[in-house]
Amino acid sequence: MYPILDKINNPNDIKKIDKQDYNRLAKEIRAFLARNVSKTGGHLASNLGVVELTMAIHLCLDFPEDKLIWDVGHQSYVHKILTGRKDRFETLRQYGGLSGFPRISESDTDAFDSGHASTSVSVGLGYAFAREMQNKHNKVFTVIGDGSMTGGLFYEAVNNAVSLKSGMIIVLNDNNMSISKSVGGMSHYLMRLRTDSRYRQLKENTKEFIKSIPEVGEKLVDKVKRSKSHIKHLFIPGMIFEDMGLTYMGPIDGHDINELVRTFNDALSLNKPVVVHVKTVKGKGYRFAEANPSMFHGVEPFNVNDGQVKKVKSPGVTSYNSVFGKKLVSLAENDDKICAVCAAMPQGTGLTEFADTYKDRFFDVGIAEEHAVTFAGALAAGGMKPVVALYSTFLQRAYDQLIHDICLSKHHVVFAIDRGGLVGSDGETHQGIFDISYLTSIPNLTVMAPKNDWELEAMLEYALNECDGPVAIRYPRGDAYTGLSEYCQDIDGLKAEVIHEGKHIAMLAYGSMVERAEKAYNTLISEGINVTLVNMRYAKPIDYAMVDKMCKEHEYVITLEENVMSGGLSEHIAAYISWKNLSCKCISVCLPDEYIEHGSCDILYKKYGIDAETITERVRGIINEGKA
Amino acid sequence: MYPILDKINNPNDIKKIDKQDYNRLAKEIRAFLARNVSKTGGHLASNLGVVELTMAIHLCLDFPEDKLIWDVGHQSYVHKILTGRKDRFETLRQYGGLSGFPRISESDTDAFDSGHASTSVSVGLGYAFAREMQNKHNKVFTVIGDGSMTGGLFYEAVNNAVSLKSGMIIVLNDNNMSISKSVGGMSHYLMRLRTDSRYRQLKENTKEFIKSIPEVGEKLVDKVKRSKSHIKHLFIPGMIFEDMGLTYMGPIDGHDINELVRTFNDALSLNKPVVVHVKTVKGKGYRFAEANPSMFHGVEPFNVNDGQVKKVKSPGVTSYNSVFGKKLVSLAENDDKICAVCAAMPQGTGLTEFADTYKDRFFDVGIAEEHAVTFAGALAAGGMKPVVALYSTFLQRAYDQLIHDICLSKHHVVFAIDRGGLVGSDGETHQGIFDISYLTSIPNLTVMAPKNDWELEAMLEYALNECDGPVAIRYPRGDAYTGLSEYCQDIDGLKAEVIHEGKHIAMLAYGSMVERAEKAYNTLISEGINVTLVNMRYAKPIDYAMVDKMCKEHEYVITLEENVMSGGLSEHIAAYISWKNLSCKCISVCLPDEYIEHGSCDILYKKYGIDAETITERVRGIINEGKA
Repeated sequence: MYPILDKINNPNDIKKIDKQDYNRLAKEIRAFLARNVSKTGGHLASNLGVVELTMAIHLCLDFPEDKLIWDVGHQSYVHKILTGRKDRFETLRQYGGLSGFPRISESDTDAFDSGHASTSVSVGLGYAFAREMQNKHNKVFTVIGDGSMTGGLFYEAVNNAVSLKSGMIIVLNDNNMSISKSVGGMSHYLMRLRTDSRYRQLKENTKEFIKSIPEVGEKLVDKVKRSKSHIKHLFIPGMIFEDMGLTYMGPIDGHDINELVRTFNDALSLNKPVVVHVKTVKGKGYRFAEANPSMFHGVEPFNVNDGQVKKVKSPGVTSYNSVFGKKLVSLAENDDKICAVCAAMPQGTGLTEFADTYKDRFFDVGIAEEHAVTFAGALAAGGMKPVVALYSTFLQRAYDQLIHDICLSKHHVVFAIDRGGLVGSDGETHQGIFDISYLTSIPNLTVMAPKNDWELEAMLEYALNECDGPVAIRYPRGDAYTGLSEYCQDIDGLKAEVIHEGKHIAMLAYGSMVERAEKAYNTLISEGINVTLVNMRYAKPIDYAMVDKMCKEHEYVITLEENVMSGGLSEHIAAYISWKNLSCKCISVCLPDEYIEHGSCDILYKKYGIDAETITERVRGIINEGKA
Repeated sequence: MYPILDKINNPNDIKKIDKQDYNRLAKEIRAFLARNVSKTGGHLASNLGVVELTMAIHLCLDFPEDKLIWDVGHQSYVHKILTGRKDRFETLRQYGGLSGFPRISESDTDAFDSGHASTSVSVGLGYAFAREMQNKHNKVFTVIGDGSMTGGLFYEAVNNAVSLKSGMIIVLNDNNMSISKSVGGMSHYLMRLRTDSRYRQLKENTKEFIKSIPEVGEKLVDKVKRSKSHIKHLFIPGMIFEDMGLTYMGPIDGHDINELVRTFNDALSLNKPVVVHVKTVKGKGYRFAEANPSMFHGVEPFNVNDGQVKKVKSPGVTSYNSVFGKKLVSLAENDDKICAVCAAMPQGTGLTEFADTYKDRFFDVGIAEEHAVTFAGALAAGGMKPVVALYSTFLQRAYDQLIHDICLSKHHVVFAIDRGGLVGSDGETHQGIFDISYLTSIPNLTVMAPKNDWELEAMLEYALNECDGPVAIRYPRGDAYTGLSEYCQDIDGLKAEVIHEGKHIAMLAYGSMVERAEKAYNTLISEGINVTLVNMRYAKPIDYAMVDKMCKEHEYVITLEENVMSGGLSEHIAAYISWKNLSCKCISVCLPDEYIEHGSCDILYKKYGIDAETITERVRGIINEGKA
């Protein structure tokens, strides 16, 4: 089925393939990708786009001595296929299976763990300088997409590349989109480089050339110096990189293996940092992905023959981010101060409708979470009501901006934090398991989480209309919980909400854990065990009056949250109980002090003991042992 | 004494000054600055450099409608002088007095609170877009130094400026140094813009001009397109900004008020984002500062007549950062894998000697903490032993990089975290009061703090030679404690160290608090109160065996740390006591959930109850009330 690909079973095997078979190999890899990802789901379009690019780089490198760093890393499937991992592809992104991102633990050909954007040039420089200091001579390649170039970390690294005295290749994989369309000045700039055919030929300076023209040369140069025009940037490609001290080559066709190899060898021979600008087509070679690269960026299992996603959404089920998006649109209808900021994720964060409806009040700043947050602080200072929608794991990038540009001055900015808690198959780098800790460490911030769809809407409305300082609302990935709809105590007043009043044990659940605690409650009540369930709502400020009451009326409180223990709600409450010297015993249900691997959320909930069954067992255990 | 300056008592008063008096006013402001800062200490050189620049901007703006944003903000003294605050200058950076940075709470002419670098363009854009959305027409000026341009946040914002449809001025205040010398490709680029006189005249394109030459023009353009050379970048100034979609003007003389005003008015008339590149001299007009701008960047009180700093360091007293720096140099002598990374603070972090001694193993990456951390992760992956030296408050910027690029893969990187705890007169934006919280939330990280100079050396050696994962060592600003030198239990083994064994109450002190707890201990013992004092050493992993023992042997444990409560050591220990259901009572001495204002550390320690006297009183109180 894959006659050429079958010959590649170990790193560097590609070098044994006949040159004339390269295109057939590329075709086989694409078929392999489409077939496998159609079963497992995963990042398809970006991998289809880098088939020849990956092959060409592999033809230039010796693994594991040489280092290849993928920015973000979801486009590393072809690299995995070529490094002895193709037999494990049916386990991709499954619990215990291959990661969807580079993992050092998986192969010594994966140079660095990744998942977040814009780190690759920093990593490449680290490897390159380490090589210099140790007088080694291995090669270093980094591959970054144009989307990742909007992140400041990329710029910080490029700014430092000039001091490298040896070689490093920065491949700019330009498909004119990251996940969604790329934004900003850098993107416009690349677009010009990409599309203007003059750039291909015109690589170099004018001055020396003009100077060299007999007789008139010198004078011309003088005149040129004094000339005026605004199309000067049409003249010289890659000047940004050249100005920053790097050598620029390109743009070249990212689907022409021979041209790629030739260019990489030229670049390597310079023995200095070189940017090679490569144009690729996202989704290349699989027509459904080529036609709809955004849909096939990260895709659920689909039918490989017609490109249709298999899993049909149950009617009436809405994801939390669309609940958020819809509510924001409706609030914005009556309040022209409301505006929205996202970082390259209009779809992911549920802001597509807002972006379409209120174009002038919508800001996609690129993969630039730090800027998104500081910018929003000033939007608020300037009289607007900004809502910043980010994933929990990416907001980690703006911890300082939250401290310095939002909370210090108490700017009224609302943070809609999606993907709070476990996210599943993206794994370690994407789990949103730190936000309760890092957010509650910051003064002046109100931190809350809804138990269900209604509560998310109510919290958003409250945050925008009743609060006058910074507010963070955290909700999980996936379908919104619609249960407990009869419990709708006013959000106002920073109060927790009692769901069930029982005896002996009080479960104090936060956000997504209310749903699971409710399931546990239902099982327990059917067994005659009647405990209390409280929807805590606020992680900051915590409703300590409720904690006092619960401790007074019960022998045990169990705190439940989908976050690491350190600095989380559980710790806040347990410490409070200790300081207040309350007699109630305290148990915590939360995540351990570890990175959580990829896998389905249900498996992970169970493994880490935050599922309804484990909660039920723990409560039952206390009751049955007669401890309460 | 200041006849012209005396006429300026309110915002916008400068507009009443005769044009012919501008230079006299500048002179008076410089005299005022030198005289006042000589008494209070503060940032002198950068303010001397922006006297004319600030005056010119004020001549173009109407406060408070128009917005002026200072990047970092320590160069806002002249702005403060011109906005009705000159009479309060003797209180500068003193407790209860004027802040050394812009503060909204101080004046409505301070558009945004600041202290950290590279935020100004994001803030300016926020104000400008807020204006657009509200159909207002106020002006927005931002001023950023060339040092701050190394930060990725600046780039993220510039990348977004292209979508602004109205005016905003980004003043690039270029003095070719931030605190120390600027680094990297951007700095080289600016240097070329600055020093090459051709750039002054040559502002524009060549192409149209050449094209317009009769007969040969078109052909020349064709040939130019195919020409080769590497000095093309000499041709066009400001191309980086132009390429990113901004209009560039300059460089112009930042000490020529009339040229500044003229240029700003030109820039404003374009009604789009414009970069105005202004060349200034740091320390201008006060000869001692001009001769030694680094020393006068942030200076202690000095004699205005001879520029000599008044406070003479006691012999034998060394600061923590020099203890760190010296020890690192000596360790690096025997280990050529050791290298050091800092972010624009070689002096501040104590790395000057290392940088001089091991030039090839020293990396100053500019004000780019995120890159510093990710880069160090890859240095470690590449076989080196990197030490990253940053201030606690600035490491906040790299929280995600710590999670994603260091601790996930357990890279052996050592973080030397200076300015942990209160820093004094820099105030809110610089207090290092969150690091215990944000560091201990991250899996796989070892977090420790020394009680004295010996322990810092021992910890650094242990971290580099015995550990194989990431380690953070936190120490305070200022003089190293040299007491308790007889207590030198091995650092190995993650154990806390008992200093004094007493009764009833155990003080569990971390880092800087050991010194103050020891003072309290000495007072108490003289009163016949004999308590226990433990040097906790590790905030992660905590020596819970020691906590167990202390809880068993005492009625009270008092945890002491110089950090906010939320997520800090106190909370970890109190929560542990609660979960383990230990009978011991628990009290926390730590900082409240607030930003801590500027002022001398001694005043602040007392105010927030983390000084030796308050600790003594609290212990005495427990004993005297018979509670223990």
